[in-house]
Amino acid sequence: MSHTLILLRHGESDWNAKNLFTGWVDVPLTEKGRGEAARGGELLVESGVLPDVVHTSLLRRAISTAHLALDAADRHWIPVRRSWRLNERHYGALQGKDKKQTLEEYGEEQFMLWRRSFDTPPPPLDDDAEFSQVGHPAYADVPDADLPRTECLKDVIARLLPYWESEVAADLRAGRTTLVAAHGNSLRAIVKHLDDIGDDEIAGLNIPTGMPLVYELDDDLRPIEKGGRYLDPQAAAEAAAAVANQGRG
Amino acid sequence: MSHTLILLRHGESDWNAKNLFTGWVDVPLTEKGRGEAARGGELLVESGVLPDVVHTSLLRRAISTAHLALDAADRHWIPVRRSWRLNERHYGALQGKDKKQTLEEYGEEQFMLWRRSFDTPPPPLDDDAEFSQVGHPAYADVPDADLPRTECLKDVIARLLPYWESEVAADLRAGRTTLVAAHGNSLRAIVKHLDDIGDDEIAGLNIPTGMPLVYELDDDLRPIEKGGRYLDPQAAAEAAAAVANQGRG
Repeated sequence: MSHTLILLRHGESDWNAKNLFTGWVDVPLTEKGRGEAARGGELLVESGVLPDVVHTSLLRRAISTAHLALDAADRHWIPVRRSWRLNERHYGALQGKDKKQTLEEYGEEQFMLWRRSFDTPPPPLDDDAEFSQVGHPAYADVPDADLPRTECLKDVIARLLPYWESEVAADLRAGRTTLVAAHGNSLRAIVKHLDDIGDDEIAGLNIPTGMPLVYELDDDLRPIEKGGRYLDPQAAAEAAAAVANQGRG
Repeated sequence: MSHTLILLRHGESDWNAKNLFTGWVDVPLTEKGRGEAARGGELLVESGVLPDVVHTSLLRRAISTAHLALDAADRHWIPVRRSWRLNERHYGALQGKDKKQTLEEYGEEQFMLWRRSFDTPPPPLDDDAEFSQVGHPAYADVPDADLPRTECLKDVIARLLPYWESEVAADLRAGRTTLVAAHGNSLRAIVKHLDDIGDDEIAGLNIPTGMPLVYELDDDLRPIEKGGRYLDPQAAAEAAAAVANQGRG
């Protein structure tokens, strides 16, 4: 029995467009981002890979992406599961800051360390800071010690894998084609786990927005083909190259 | 302990705007309907009645209404449950037909019998008819004998109450403020049950679109105040009067 997983990164958000660090700040999609999400859903239809269940983060850019993609795919009616463990990486004190300004202020080395280091998080965000989500009702059930104030990719993996292993894996093992609509770094965490990518190598992996990435998994939930396959490979390659240059312009 | 239930009827759909019988046909909201849904969400915020969980039908006009209202209320992240048992009344062979033409063709008496009789369903829809949903994957788990081909309000109540008593009641009893985003007749079925409205009387009840109707329930899940309260009572009264005249123009 093969198990089908679909990863979908949310489309452009307000703060992607403004080139700000976003993390857990709950910004909406732009009109372009809404179009990307719908196009993702059309790709699902065209390729006949139709989800039976969807998992999202608690952030509206992932929730709206799932809603728009599923509506376009005529799968709006499938069961929905959500978890904070699928949220984007918490960007600590950088949340709300301009990427270009941060690059100029701290220099290329520090900037890339915060953006791409596996185990160096940015400085933590104060609980009473403007862009803190501490105290937000969406996270009322999360023990305070588990609620991040900043994260590196290693931290994202640590808080995401328990959800992967219980909730997502349960759907996959039950034979459900499973869509995970989430974020650059939470999806990177899943891909690193699936493809067994090294700590130094994972920073170079850029998952483009709105482009369904499909993995066929064996009974141990290991990829039958490493790296999976994009439903629109050419567009994905072009978009990944563009993402790699983000924040440099 | 009091239990809070919020009923929300979907905003205007494509076929509301075209004055066609819709039933289980899965048409989208119009732009006006999307605005109604968002306004419903703003009313939740203004009144401080914020849902902890949402139940929807499997039809996109209810699913989109819930999504837009919750996004406007900053509650997009709450758990979602869906069931075909919250679907609109199945309108049988009338699905897809023009209301005005049907009125002219069959006359006022037959027309009103189909629209408002408690226990007279329209003629059934053939399984191979254009607007049949038999065979649609959304209903793959519904036993064929349970899948309606036409319904009167009595039939809606019979298939809705098991879901009310298990799933919705469980959330209410757990102390969760529960939003049900659904349809004119599935919500009418809930209100009839809650307010113990007579079979002849229920036809006169018109729940306006996009206007949250809030019930505080006691521990037996009976309304503390019969009829509940609309968060915008004046707009609700005006809209209900307009709905009552629908199809007459």
